[in-house]
Amino acid sequence: MDHYENTLRQRLISAALAEDIGPGDVTCNAVLTGDETGSARAIAKAGLVVAGLDTFRETFLAVDPELSFTALTAEGEEVVPGAKLAEIAGSLKSILMAERTALNLFQRMCGIATTTRAFVRTVAGTGAKILDTRKTAPGLRILDKYAVRIGGGTNHRYALFDGVLIKDNHIAAAGGIAPAIAMARRRITHTLKIEIEVKSIAELTEALAAGADTVMLDNMSVADMKTAVAMTAGRASLEASGNVTLKTVRRIAETGVDFISVGALTHSVQAADISLLIAQ
Amino acid sequence: MDHYENTLRQRLISAALAEDIGPGDVTCNAVLTGDETGSARAIAKAGLVVAGLDTFRETFLAVDPELSFTALTAEGEEVVPGAKLAEIAGSLKSILMAERTALNLFQRMCGIATTTRAFVRTVAGTGAKILDTRKTAPGLRILDKYAVRIGGGTNHRYALFDGVLIKDNHIAAAGGIAPAIAMARRRITHTLKIEIEVKSIAELTEALAAGADTVMLDNMSVADMKTAVAMTAGRASLEASGNVTLKTVRRIAETGVDFISVGALTHSVQAADISLLIAQ
Amino acid sequence: MDHYENTLRQRLISAALAEDIGPGDVTCNAVLTGDETGSARAIAKAGLVVAGLDTFRETFLAVDPELSFTALTAEGEEVVPGAKLAEIAGSLKSILMAERTALNLFQRMCGIATTTRAFVRTVAGTGAKILDTRKTAPGLRILDKYAVRIGGGTNHRYALFDGVLIKDNHIAAAGGIAPAIAMARRRITHTLKIEIEVKSIAELTEALAAGADTVMLDNMSVADMKTAVAMTAGRASLEASGNVTLKTVRRIAETGVDFISVGALTHSVQAADISLLIAQ
Amino acid sequence: MDHYENTLRQRLISAALAEDIGPGDVTCNAVLTGDETGSARAIAKAGLVVAGLDTFRETFLAVDPELSFTALTAEGEEVVPGAKLAEIAGSLKSILMAERTALNLFQRMCGIATTTRAFVRTVAGTGAKILDTRKTAPGLRILDKYAVRIGGGTNHRYALFDGVLIKDNHIAAAGGIAPAIAMARRRITHTLKIEIEVKSIAELTEALAAGADTVMLDNMSVADMKTAVAMTAGRASLEASGNVTLKTVRRIAETGVDFISVGALTHSVQAADISLLIAQ
Amino acid sequence: MDHYENTLRQRLISAALAEDIGPGDVTCNAVLTGDETGSARAIAKAGLVVAGLDTFRETFLAVDPELSFTALTAEGEEVVPGAKLAEIAGSLKSILMAERTALNLFQRMCGIATTTRAFVRTVAGTGAKILDTRKTAPGLRILDKYAVRIGGGTNHRYALFDGVLIKDNHIAAAGGIAPAIAMARRRITHTLKIEIEVKSIAELTEALAAGADTVMLDNMSVADMKTAVAMTAGRASLEASGNVTLKTVRRIAETGVDFISVGALTHSVQAADISLLIAQ
Amino acid sequence: MDHYENTLRQRLISAALAEDIGPGDVTCNAVLTGDETGSARAIAKAGLVVAGLDTFRETFLAVDPELSFTALTAEGEEVVPGAKLAEIAGSLKSILMAERTALNLFQRMCGIATTTRAFVRTVAGTGAKILDTRKTAPGLRILDKYAVRIGGGTNHRYALFDGVLIKDNHIAAAGGIAPAIAMARRRITHTLKIEIEVKSIAELTEALAAGADTVMLDNMSVADMKTAVAMTAGRASLEASGNVTLKTVRRIAETGVDFISVGALTHSVQAADISLLIAQ
Repeated sequence: MDHYENTLRQRLISAALAEDIGPGDVTCNAVLTGDETGSARAIAKAGLVVAGLDTFRETFLAVDPELSFTALTAEGEEVVPGAKLAEIAGSLKSILMAERTALNLFQRMCGIATTTRAFVRTVAGTGAKILDTRKTAPGLRILDKYAVRIGGGTNHRYALFDGVLIKDNHIAAAGGIAPAIAMARRRITHTLKIEIEVKSIAELTEALAAGADTVMLDNMSVADMKTAVAMTAGRASLEASGNVTLKTVRRIAETGVDFISVGALTHSVQAADISLLIAQ
Repeated sequence: MDHYENTLRQRLISAALAEDIGPGDVTCNAVLTGDETGSARAIAKAGLVVAGLDTFRETFLAVDPELSFTALTAEGEEVVPGAKLAEIAGSLKSILMAERTALNLFQRMCGIATTTRAFVRTVAGTGAKILDTRKTAPGLRILDKYAVRIGGGTNHRYALFDGVLIKDNHIAAAGGIAPAIAMARRRITHTLKIEIEVKSIAELTEALAAGADTVMLDNMSVADMKTAVAMTAGRASLEASGNVTLKTVRRIAETGVDFISVGALTHSVQAADISLLIAQ
Repeated sequence: MDHYENTLRQRLISAALAEDIGPGDVTCNAVLTGDETGSARAIAKAGLVVAGLDTFRETFLAVDPELSFTALTAEGEEVVPGAKLAEIAGSLKSILMAERTALNLFQRMCGIATTTRAFVRTVAGTGAKILDTRKTAPGLRILDKYAVRIGGGTNHRYALFDGVLIKDNHIAAAGGIAPAIAMARRRITHTLKIEIEVKSIAELTEALAAGADTVMLDNMSVADMKTAVAMTAGRASLEASGNVTLKTVRRIAETGVDFISVGALTHSVQAADISLLIAQ
Repeated sequence: MDHYENTLRQRLISAALAEDIGPGDVTCNAVLTGDETGSARAIAKAGLVVAGLDTFRETFLAVDPELSFTALTAEGEEVVPGAKLAEIAGSLKSILMAERTALNLFQRMCGIATTTRAFVRTVAGTGAKILDTRKTAPGLRILDKYAVRIGGGTNHRYALFDGVLIKDNHIAAAGGIAPAIAMARRRITHTLKIEIEVKSIAELTEALAAGADTVMLDNMSVADMKTAVAMTAGRASLEASGNVTLKTVRRIAETGVDFISVGALTHSVQAADISLLIAQ
Repeated sequence: MDHYENTLRQRLISAALAEDIGPGDVTCNAVLTGDETGSARAIAKAGLVVAGLDTFRETFLAVDPELSFTALTAEGEEVVPGAKLAEIAGSLKSILMAERTALNLFQRMCGIATTTRAFVRTVAGTGAKILDTRKTAPGLRILDKYAVRIGGGTNHRYALFDGVLIKDNHIAAAGGIAPAIAMARRRITHTLKIEIEVKSIAELTEALAAGADTVMLDNMSVADMKTAVAMTAGRASLEASGNVTLKTVRRIAETGVDFISVGALTHSVQAADISLLIAQ
Repeated sequence: MDHYENTLRQRLISAALAEDIGPGDVTCNAVLTGDETGSARAIAKAGLVVAGLDTFRETFLAVDPELSFTALTAEGEEVVPGAKLAEIAGSLKSILMAERTALNLFQRMCGIATTTRAFVRTVAGTGAKILDTRKTAPGLRILDKYAVRIGGGTNHRYALFDGVLIKDNHIAAAGGIAPAIAMARRRITHTLKIEIEVKSIAELTEALAAGADTVMLDNMSVADMKTAVAMTAGRASLEASGNVTLKTVRRIAETGVDFISVGALTHSVQAADISLLIAQ
């Protein structure tokens, strides 16, 4: 993330800390004097892809800018169980107050990157790119999409404002595929391409004839996807979409589609198993 | 949720919509005139526990207060695949602009409630309560914890400000279990109880002697938990904690512990499978 | 503007009112009782294109939701000097408190639409579209770009997030036009096109060979633009850019370029001359 | 600007950057690695009065605090075409991300100062002061009014809260000039003066009799203004108002009025022509 | 308060409720079903001046817009112990959640008005006005100053932006009273008067000679104040300042000063004694 | 306060400064050049307990981070009239702009600590703790409650979210003391205790039988409180509540109650008398 994105991230972190600490940590306030110091290590309890070290660090620093943070691994690295990911040292109270929020963010990001990496590896060699979707946790999209990239995935549009994706309901409202694409071409900013969703080979034919830049093949069978790739012959990019799993993704990729979008990368995140071990 | 909580929820929804729509939906702006009307039905594609109907409704209304929303099921209900959950009618553009954000929230909430219900059902008859944790998606805690309640679970403390939970690092800093509890008793607000984490029967003995209100048994074996229950004999509440799964939860519950906390309820949410079918 | 955009606009209006009224209008508080009622008419003192009636109305309603507002003309209409644009009735104090902020916004929007209309009319029949730029008043972009559309202009990308525009410095950093385009193609979201800036016919040749979707001809002579159009032969869209004025725009349009971007539409706005006449 | 005002300015800059960059600059993210460095010079393409160097600098630093910024001219200086105004060095990506927002603010401020200087110079030697108005771009008033001062102009009240200006509608509501002034005197804070608008010599007579501190001569002829000055004989300050231009301002000033307010200084800003030339 | 000021007040109320309720009222959530209804009466337990009925009402409505609120007395009225001030009816949970915040605001406002009224009454017939100061509770100034007006007091400047008050340190920095006033006259907006603080008759002489509009007599003896009034003879307004109490204020007022400022009105507020009696 | 709490405090300070300075300090802008430097000493004009030195410092630094601040006393110290509390040095303009807001906060905090100390001292040796309440100035609770602790008092629950306190209306809604406590026990988070309000010995008997953790004796006579203490015999904590004054508190404490809550500590604050003496 660049300096500017860090600003966005810091607002998010600040809100997350306020949610968890509110007016104060009653346990730390009661049991600690505030003068204790210590250090903590984040340990991978299972194999995972590291994503979000900067977010992890910034969360601790947001609670206490005097904490020191040392990354012990690199962003995107695949680590074995037991790997030391980072070390934080300084005020014990600050470390304990930040711990949960920092882990909530970091475990989610590593979880997303780990799953994405699995999908990317499964399609290795096919030329298909694994795409994310807008099915992210509200408020966390900037982190969710970043973690997908670290995992080796490719970002689809960020939001409704930076990509045209004409779905069945838009098509129905516009009176069909051809009129929808024609209308979009007239009215969108010239910096945007047009992607359109189709459910059949017949619809694909229409979309190609109307000049779609990308066609999303929605819940199509593998056989139909193969036909679609052959028929399209490079005239448009093709995105496979619809309940893709690690079991099905390789066969989909082998059809020759350009993109495979996987909602589960971000809508059903398995938090990576990471512990913070503290030594005083 | 009461009227006040609705205000909190509306701020969250408003931020989520801003994240997804930003300055505008380029597809709707291009392909729709804005005058189209339609209706949409949210359909369960799999069995699930309904949670978040109000949040779902408020997201649509935040985009367009003139939309009409009809719940077709009740909060907390368990529905079969194909069940109609809600109907939204009005401006097609408004429905499409709100769709993704509304589903992102609703699918997460139903997912949490569904998993919670499974845990609650698995321990039925044992007297043990299923607790959530602070391992929620940053920014969404109020919804995550609400969904746990709808699923039949019980909320642990909301945040660091409404519950004392003395963990190993606090204990080490305070110089042991007894001094930690004594220090807490002197310094906390009298409206709060004291919960303390122990890792062994020996530590439990200390904690009970020091007058802990609740003792968290951290990653203890089922055998040890049984011993703990017998030994405690009601002098304190007992909370089992540590990588609890649907497979292990029943045996844990049968030890007689009062609470079993399950981080996965909220840190590894499986989004419920819900589609929005739109008719124009 | 749709319902959602109205929310964005209301935040902007609310901040603008806070800037102008702060803790209160000392004149109204001193000289009025608060019970006076009256009505006001917004009158065009010169010919103009109407843009921003909704913004004008919302500003009055933000100060006092009980004011009544009647538009007396239509968005986009061209009116003669003396034309009545709108009527506001209700609490005189509320009208006077909102007056300046409402006019500041409305006069700017009408000014932008009026100038845009002049450019659009000047190129009528040529096929060239008049584009705006990102040279807007910070904080007011959503209104500035809306006013351009009402004037008949076409919006370029909204911001840095919804359009790729590779300028000379990006090119130099990437090591040339071809590598820059290749790098962009690999790394951008597939929903975006690639526009690149060139300063000569030689650079245009490179850009076309590299597959640019749009080429911006930066400060090129009319003769070179003609050459560019002929050479490009529809393989890419062409955007003319650089200090375009009402005097030069027709000749530029006649070269056959697709787009002509005009920074002055929004960076040097001539506020439309509008008065609010109040009758008590 | 003092330290405190800098805080206000930074909020404004932060919002402006969010408007332009949103979740990220897709071009820089695609074409740059983030490691490129470079330097940029802001060059005056036309003669102008420099205003806003601090705002210009702070915008770059808001994107990246590690950029270095060197002013090459002084605030308020009048520079010739080609003059180097400032130099920025550091991360090329940061410079390019900040460029447009920084220039949008700086060009507006220099434009305001340049026009103000022209008015001030035109009335030199007459004793009349050039005043701004509240006709500023909503959200930018603090910068607009600052630029007027740098141009040599004098600020009228900042907003509705720091000056009493009784206009025709207030007068009508209060039942005449004398009752309006009497009412104001009774009810305003004693730290404020009373200014009142008049349209004729007869009204001026009334206002003077009622003890107005300042009288605004609204759209009065030069001849009437002369009469007004003679008649007033220093009993009140006089402000000339109403569509003042560079052509008419000298004659107005020569009538002996104390102040001449010029709405166009801020409502119809001609952005100063400034380019950022980047060397890598 | 007018409609616009109500907006300011609602932001303040919303923040106050968030401070007190946070994520929820644990008592109401536990003990009530949410369906209970009831009504509450605010009762004066001691004599007081009523101020802030609208603020009181808006706090309840902010928690629950369906509550009904009936004022049983009028703003500014002086009531006897036992007087019924207002009645609220509707959801019992909503009433109980709002109660404390609503009373905190209302009791403070009534307390301020009550004390102010006592001062105003004590100086009745002397012509002196009782002024407040900027010694308000941070964040509550708009309510504190409003309550002073309701009590019959007069507002001094609202803040640092709407009144010039040159104190000893400003004078020292400027090199004396005369240069300070001269400098201010040259540089302030013409809508503002100049008030200056003096500590002796000698300084008053200087201030009058320099043309101060108002002179603040800082901690002067009653004898000196009499001299000051005689000497000034109406050439400037005079404000007495410095630890004024109900015991000393009458004698100060009888010196003939125009204003007496009393910091204690707002810096040492005695909350009015008001109870909320609830009937279910 | 720890680092995190400092963040909360800085938001509060920033809002307080915006309230008082708005777009600028017209006096300083007029009379100072901005280059003057000086130093200021905060002097206790009366005996007081020091509380809020950090808040005092942060307010100055928020206006100007280059000011230097030296505490000349310690938090919680009791000082004599004339004591020097702190010294601030640097830009005179910055010191003067921050002065009022800094003092408003600091004088309130010292005032609260001073009164609290008087109550605490009055009950010395009895074992009773002096509690605050939620009757704080809206927006300032974090500072008000901190000052109580510095004064030697004990904090009651912070807000509605971290303590269960069942009052008469809750009891009535639940159908009596026993059902209310039973309902609470079932539904509250297990980290919270249950406090209940009673008005008579009979009610206390019920509350004890139902297992209340703490019982608030509301407006009970000293004789009844003695009976209550005897009867309770340590089975629950007892809190005396209701219009406690310095005159009555000792006798209440001697009854043997555990806690005495005093609303006046924060609802009727007497600002400590502190002056800022500036030397240039």
